[in-house]
Amino acid sequence: MPELFTVVSPDEAFERLRAQIGDPILRLETAPLPRALGRTLGRALVAIESLPAFARSAMDGYAVSARQTAGASESSPVYLRLAGEVRMGSIPPEVLAPGTCMRIHTGAALPRGADAVVMVEETNLLESGEVEVLASVAPGEDVVQTGEDVTAGSAVLPAGHRLRAVDLGGLAALGVTNVAVARRPRVAVLSTGDELVPPEGHPRPGEVRDVNGPVVCAMLGQAGAEAQHRGIVPDDEERLLAAAAAALAETDGLVITAGSSVSLRDATARVIARLGGPGILVHGVAVKPGKPTILAYCGGKPVFGLPGNPVSAAVLCWRMVLPAVRLLLGEPVAPGGLPPPVGSARLAQNVPSRSGREDYVAVRIEPGSGGEAQAVPAFAKSNLIFSLVRSGALIRIPRDTGGLLAGEPVDVYAW
Amino acid sequence: MPELFTVVSPDEAFERLRAQIGDPILRLETAPLPRALGRTLGRALVAIESLPAFARSAMDGYAVSARQTAGASESSPVYLRLAGEVRMGSIPPEVLAPGTCMRIHTGAALPRGADAVVMVEETNLLESGEVEVLASVAPGEDVVQTGEDVTAGSAVLPAGHRLRAVDLGGLAALGVTNVAVARRPRVAVLSTGDELVPPEGHPRPGEVRDVNGPVVCAMLGQAGAEAQHRGIVPDDEERLLAAAAAALAETDGLVITAGSSVSLRDATARVIARLGGPGILVHGVAVKPGKPTILAYCGGKPVFGLPGNPVSAAVLCWRMVLPAVRLLLGEPVAPGGLPPPVGSARLAQNVPSRSGREDYVAVRIEPGSGGEAQAVPAFAKSNLIFSLVRSGALIRIPRDTGGLLAGEPVDVYAW
Repeated sequence: MPELFTVVSPDEAFERLRAQIGDPILRLETAPLPRALGRTLGRALVAIESLPAFARSAMDGYAVSARQTAGASESSPVYLRLAGEVRMGSIPPEVLAPGTCMRIHTGAALPRGADAVVMVEETNLLESGEVEVLASVAPGEDVVQTGEDVTAGSAVLPAGHRLRAVDLGGLAALGVTNVAVARRPRVAVLSTGDELVPPEGHPRPGEVRDVNGPVVCAMLGQAGAEAQHRGIVPDDEERLLAAAAAALAETDGLVITAGSSVSLRDATARVIARLGGPGILVHGVAVKPGKPTILAYCGGKPVFGLPGNPVSAAVLCWRMVLPAVRLLLGEPVAPGGLPPPVGSARLAQNVPSRSGREDYVAVRIEPGSGGEAQAVPAFAKSNLIFSLVRSGALIRIPRDTGGLLAGEPVDVYAW
Repeated sequence: MPELFTVVSPDEAFERLRAQIGDPILRLETAPLPRALGRTLGRALVAIESLPAFARSAMDGYAVSARQTAGASESSPVYLRLAGEVRMGSIPPEVLAPGTCMRIHTGAALPRGADAVVMVEETNLLESGEVEVLASVAPGEDVVQTGEDVTAGSAVLPAGHRLRAVDLGGLAALGVTNVAVARRPRVAVLSTGDELVPPEGHPRPGEVRDVNGPVVCAMLGQAGAEAQHRGIVPDDEERLLAAAAAALAETDGLVITAGSSVSLRDATARVIARLGGPGILVHGVAVKPGKPTILAYCGGKPVFGLPGNPVSAAVLCWRMVLPAVRLLLGEPVAPGGLPPPVGSARLAQNVPSRSGREDYVAVRIEPGSGGEAQAVPAFAKSNLIFSLVRSGALIRIPRDTGGLLAGEPVDVYAW
């Protein structure tokens, strides 16, 4: 029998792994802008130019020298001769002469000699070709100054930032069309258990289809990894070792979802212990579901042994494996690895727990009284996969409570 | 000048478009299970078999006939002869004989003649080969019954459901490895404006790079559409019409992001009005930013004219275009089109608004006092793209308020 490690808190378990991973050496690759969505910036993005690159109008109206509008009001207008129109996409060749103005559109470059814009609503264009200005403007009024959005040389996004749609706009504005991003870590996934057949298989009595392989691979993909499902390995320590070693040699990490029998969990631990040093860091996490989880670091790569129960495997993959993927991508990960909640809700019923253990419960989120969301636990006797399918989110019962009462607020996590 | 439609509320604007789209005829395609993540179910998923398909053990222990444990306790144990071990992945050929039990692991099939499991912690295995049972069990105890997770014939996921990682586990458990999903709607995106150059271009004085094309395309892709950026068209009504008609002929919808000058917005409206009936449904939405937005339905396809300002374009794409994509995918969309908030936060400062108008403000979400999240507005004078890049979320100021005060709760939306 392998040494059974002391059960440790989820935070402590993750931090033991983080200490091994340290500051990973990021391998970067170039993503063309349209494919950079969801990728992780490999280097801080520094603006190589200022935005806007020229002072431009923030309104439709007339470009003026603010001085010339001094004292203008509805009862005492100022009259400026219309000297033309600023074309979009160019800087007017002429300098704005005293006593004149130019028609300008939002986004157009301010002509030289102009320092403000009078919006069209505060003017009248007279048949004489003069513009009647009904309000004075200050220098800079309705003008976006050069560098007002971004100044050249400033850091606009940090390394490790996961790119959203709006960030692609920022990159486009700066002309960054080839983005240095972290290469997706490759993570191998092995499912073990004599009772397992692949999803496309036809289980005989006593057999079940592999659920954990597809779920773990999909989660890994969402987290930014490149998942490689390496199939199902029967309950045989030497065969599992061979498959695990081969998988780990070709990837940056390995997840083994064990069959759920005690003997099989032990086999998984023995196999992981043989994959290279320093080996098993944690065997047993104070979390429900998912206690019989293994975190290891073997030959410079993280290795996880997840329980065979599909709810346990999904929760622990989300709680331990995905934060590790984010570390490998160079993304910031909070102490303990827990991702930020997407919101909070009030418990619809009491949820028992045990102090010293962190519990996760699948819930449906429903509208509650007073506009607050309500979390309805989707309890199921044996943590069956459809209890997750029927739920919308997870809630967390912190480890220092003995459960929570109906009406108490809980953090909600999405996956 | 085209007829300027009355400005309508965002909810009303979206519902006018929904009325035209009606119940779209979904075109389905088959996605293999590993590629079904994020796709939309084209048909309700009905279980063709029950799960579990056989009664199985929920614990490591001994399969028994519950009757035989009647009265067992620590002080008065029952003794059962160990008749073997249930192998994972098979149904034992023999029927459990009276007075015997079989060792069983979590997930293994219950042998015939057994109806309960005594967990290993409540037994002692004696050297005699007998099992000392220290507690009585009721029929069904620690057994997952056939069909307890899913019963054959039941609907487990509705059509229009967007598949998450855990859903792929449900599909795998049922053996559904080719999933009927809604085909991604193809949406063309055109950027217009004489001042625009593509992101890879080198703007001359007065020119800017196209920000809206990349942002709108990325948002469309995230929402499940297949975006086709058809490039930049100069401010020329006939050229814009030709480009728009060609794009719409090959796709299921069209988004034109207009340059921001009034004349150009007018050109966009005239072009959209010429793309086919019924044409423009809404020209002007009571929302800030983004008022000069056009919603249209032309020849059976939704068409949008978004403002040229990048913040306006992003907010209105998110508020109007993405819910329309979800309709085309057959997904449920709440009345008015607003997606559900991801949470709520307290305003860090006063935010003025005007009654009758729905406002969206980019915010950073920060930890606040008392554990509640705090929304810090990222106000920028002219709605520049980096005000979005620097923000993490949007908040909504409902249309029936004249603004909100610091400390008031607001709904938070992610993108």
